[in-house]
Amino acid sequence: MAKASDSKEKTVAAAAKLFCRQGYHGTALHDILAASGAPRGSLYFHFPDGKEQIGVAAIGLGAQAVRDFIVAAASGADSAETFAASLARGMAANLEASGFREGCPIAPTALETATQSKALGAAARKAFQAWEQEIARALSGFGVPANAAAPLATAVLSQLEGALLLARTYRDIAPMRRAEAAVTALVRGAGS
Amino acid sequence: MAKASDSKEKTVAAAAKLFCRQGYHGTALHDILAASGAPRGSLYFHFPDGKEQIGVAAIGLGAQAVRDFIVAAASGADSAETFAASLARGMAANLEASGFREGCPIAPTALETATQSKALGAAARKAFQAWEQEIARALSGFGVPANAAAPLATAVLSQLEGALLLARTYRDIAPMRRAEAAVTALVRGAGS
Repeated sequence: MAKASDSKEKTVAAAAKLFCRQGYHGTALHDILAASGAPRGSLYFHFPDGKEQIGVAAIGLGAQAVRDFIVAAASGADSAETFAASLARGMAANLEASGFREGCPIAPTALETATQSKALGAAARKAFQAWEQEIARALSGFGVPANAAAPLATAVLSQLEGALLLARTYRDIAPMRRAEAAVTALVRGAGS
Repeated sequence: MAKASDSKEKTVAAAAKLFCRQGYHGTALHDILAASGAPRGSLYFHFPDGKEQIGVAAIGLGAQAVRDFIVAAASGADSAETFAASLARGMAANLEASGFREGCPIAPTALETATQSKALGAAARKAFQAWEQEIARALSGFGVPANAAAPLATAVLSQLEGALLLARTYRDIAPMRRAEAAVTALVRGAGS
């Protein structure tokens, strides 16, 4: 039998993938159980507050994954432009590798639950803000002036999020290529 | 008693608002009936194929509203830059006026159902493509070179969609202001 912590991690990983692919409300607890293989009892043990608590944990997992991705992109880049381009290329590659089923891990839940759940709204806010801060930190490190880094990071993240939405809907990577050109131009214009 | 066509329109308008605020799967048929005030029988009469058919009609309604908004923004602008800025300002004003409850009318449904429903996916694709084309047409009209207008329109729409997602999640208009600066910079860079 799997250890309790394994069950918890499997549950959150399965939930995160399902919420990303088909949304929060479109995923039932029995879908999560079936996908995770974790016993029903462990779900109630680890998440006594129910689905919302799983949702917060799933957003946290997605938040950390994207944050790690941003940090890796920064460490593999040699300028603000190549950093921005590699964010777009990496996200495009992930979207394509998932058969256009997995875009942003938290956007579906964020849009569905913004008006309904303070806990999920706060988790999504924290995630997006962490990504903005990580992008801004990287841009600053590549020489973008301090007062330009924060607004530029917001614009880069917005550009990538919107392009993921279009590319996923079109089942076509083209919007991500155009986003790559756009974020590169924006970074160039900010005088890095 | 309301005419049948009134009932149909009311149903689609109520559904569109609910899908925008809380997503497609988070909205049940009885929510739509309660919000529309239309009799249950008219729902089954006008939408014999059920919720998916209502979803397609709701996406169509949202698509037309945004298309009209783009056309109006173009006709009120005197350059590609003021056009792009007014798209961002108008969307920001709508988001704020709704108490941050209504961002893009179709993004939530598009993200939730991309992997599940061909009909909803096709409707969302058609909507986004129509917006891209309308933005590209306006940019061309303001002098953006023909080969730059289409990719620039994609980038402008992505920028606005992503910023709506962030602004709605943050319950703060700041990302829309940054998107306004970004789309203006992108348009300027395209040499309009």
